[in-house]
Amino acid sequence: MNEHAYAVIMAGGRGERFWPLSTSRRPKQLLSLVGDRSLLGQAVERLEGLVPPAHVFIITNADLLEATRETAPELPPENIIGEPFGRDTAAAVALGAALVKAKDPDGVFAILTADHIMGQLPLFRQTLAESFELAGMSDVFITIGIKPTEAATGFGYIEAGEVYKDGEIRFLKAERFVEKPDRETAEEYLASQTFYWNAGMFIWSVRNVIAGLVKHRKELIPLIEAVVPVVGRPEFDTVLAREYDGLEKISIDYALMEHADNILVAEGLFDWDDVGSWAALPAHIPAEDGNTAIGQVQALDSAGNIVYSGDRLTALVGVDNLVVVQADGVTLICAKDRAQDIKQLVQQVKDTGSYPELL
Amino acid sequence: MNEHAYAVIMAGGRGERFWPLSTSRRPKQLLSLVGDRSLLGQAVERLEGLVPPAHVFIITNADLLEATRETAPELPPENIIGEPFGRDTAAAVALGAALVKAKDPDGVFAILTADHIMGQLPLFRQTLAESFELAGMSDVFITIGIKPTEAATGFGYIEAGEVYKDGEIRFLKAERFVEKPDRETAEEYLASQTFYWNAGMFIWSVRNVIAGLVKHRKELIPLIEAVVPVVGRPEFDTVLAREYDGLEKISIDYALMEHADNILVAEGLFDWDDVGSWAALPAHIPAEDGNTAIGQVQALDSAGNIVYSGDRLTALVGVDNLVVVQADGVTLICAKDRAQDIKQLVQQVKDTGSYPELL
Repeated sequence: MNEHAYAVIMAGGRGERFWPLSTSRRPKQLLSLVGDRSLLGQAVERLEGLVPPAHVFIITNADLLEATRETAPELPPENIIGEPFGRDTAAAVALGAALVKAKDPDGVFAILTADHIMGQLPLFRQTLAESFELAGMSDVFITIGIKPTEAATGFGYIEAGEVYKDGEIRFLKAERFVEKPDRETAEEYLASQTFYWNAGMFIWSVRNVIAGLVKHRKELIPLIEAVVPVVGRPEFDTVLAREYDGLEKISIDYALMEHADNILVAEGLFDWDDVGSWAALPAHIPAEDGNTAIGQVQALDSAGNIVYSGDRLTALVGVDNLVVVQADGVTLICAKDRAQDIKQLVQQVKDTGSYPELL
Repeated sequence: MNEHAYAVIMAGGRGERFWPLSTSRRPKQLLSLVGDRSLLGQAVERLEGLVPPAHVFIITNADLLEATRETAPELPPENIIGEPFGRDTAAAVALGAALVKAKDPDGVFAILTADHIMGQLPLFRQTLAESFELAGMSDVFITIGIKPTEAATGFGYIEAGEVYKDGEIRFLKAERFVEKPDRETAEEYLASQTFYWNAGMFIWSVRNVIAGLVKHRKELIPLIEAVVPVVGRPEFDTVLAREYDGLEKISIDYALMEHADNILVAEGLFDWDDVGSWAALPAHIPAEDGNTAIGQVQALDSAGNIVYSGDRLTALVGVDNLVVVQADGVTLICAKDRAQDIKQLVQQVKDTGSYPELL
């Protein structure tokens, strides 16, 4: 174990794409979509043996603090920090840098996601371990690039150039970050073998990332300077709220990564999925009688459905390719190829003003 | 009002076609599918001003006695009779004849259904009033034949011959009863103008129907002879159970109507629908945003759906022509053109043995 290694898990996020199971009070990272633990709980568990619990931070929304502490009971409660309001990922990274710096100015930390599914965990851990090592001894920013397995149009990509370091895990120079491509471009990326999925995971030293922010996003430096001395003190929340208040919302990709020229891609060969919608579940749950079911389902002449049955029985007769989700007082029935439009329905429900408890 | 007029409403029935809203403990006639009252409550209400409450009987299953009395509070509770077990409609008609005979040997009674929807009620009442009159003064069996409005394949038909009596309501001689036809035959029936839907409503005098049973189904006579003296007495239930025990199951159509040669068709020109499945609802409930909804529904790009939402919210995204029914702990989702197969699913659920409370 690298004694300077830390992890900051970004667990903000809204509750729309997995509605009605996910809501603003129970966003995706708190759901146990696959496996017995919440996605966030699994994200914490993945670090076992690599980063000690005292070195793992979670940054979430202030109103999810209690639920987040419950889902990750192995962490010290004070390591779970609630943002007073969301200011996008650049602010959260700066806050993470401050939290780590307060404990260890020589720290190296990983920014990790809270709501993705991963497999082949030894390979994930190896990737992270070598990244900690490399980021601790050179002034690079490392981003984990997932080796594409299909021509996905739902992710941003990173184009990689020459090999920087070869070994169990390959590190390559990052050439550029690109936005979500169209289908044709995604096919080219896949064929080229030089493009990687941007999975939102970064590894860097506290010192380097602060130097990068000084250079490319100095608006975030006062936050770091104000927070470091108050970590673990009663005035922490007040200081954080005051510093956050004036910040613009900007992602770490725009604020830092797109401007920096010292970025490496750590080749991520482990299984990874961001489970962007209900339609992504079948890849992770074995089908029964042709349907992907969580909970009690009885089906007659029905196939290709994705059913989350909550504490009800779902009965299907002659229906195909539906997403059915039962949670609290709502049942959602959605065509599988329209799963990305659930948030539009959520907005429609919101507009009625009639169901605040279901959103 | 004809002082000899009685009505016997047949309210047996199972709970499969409207499952999961209908169950064995809450069959279709107890549901308020259309309007504020249960279908059975509406059947009772339709007789107002035509048959006094003391002359209206309901024959139901013994285990539905309480629920039936609640749904028809205007009737004397002792007029609601529970069969110890179902023995099909011939036995129920014989029981009805006994109930009426005990009160009035000169009685004339109508056998009516409990779970159909009717409109143009003055016309229905006129049909019934004239039928009581005619059945009281001649030895005919009258069946109400509904004038077909489409080539329905879900009903039996009655072929009518020459006019027996013309007036506000026409009475024609019945030539023959035929089973549910195929589509082509149904088209011919519709075009012929001489075929009527067999709606299961009959009017006859106690005297004539007993004479008919003596001739065509004498196995039912002991039941009548045993029951008449004990109507309203404590031993009624015991006698009924004993007499029912040995009876074969047979419908009144097979037991009597197909053998009798003195049958008239009263031409039923009022609106009538047996609401045979969820798919029949849109004809009776105005659509909202293209969907037929009972309860709270939010729809996005969805049309032609039939939704019974219970006390939940049903949210639809990009789905068409579904039947969605939420009741108790079950949600059913069924292709609209498969609504007739719900009973197959109910059987499948029954076979699991896991959900007795939902059946």
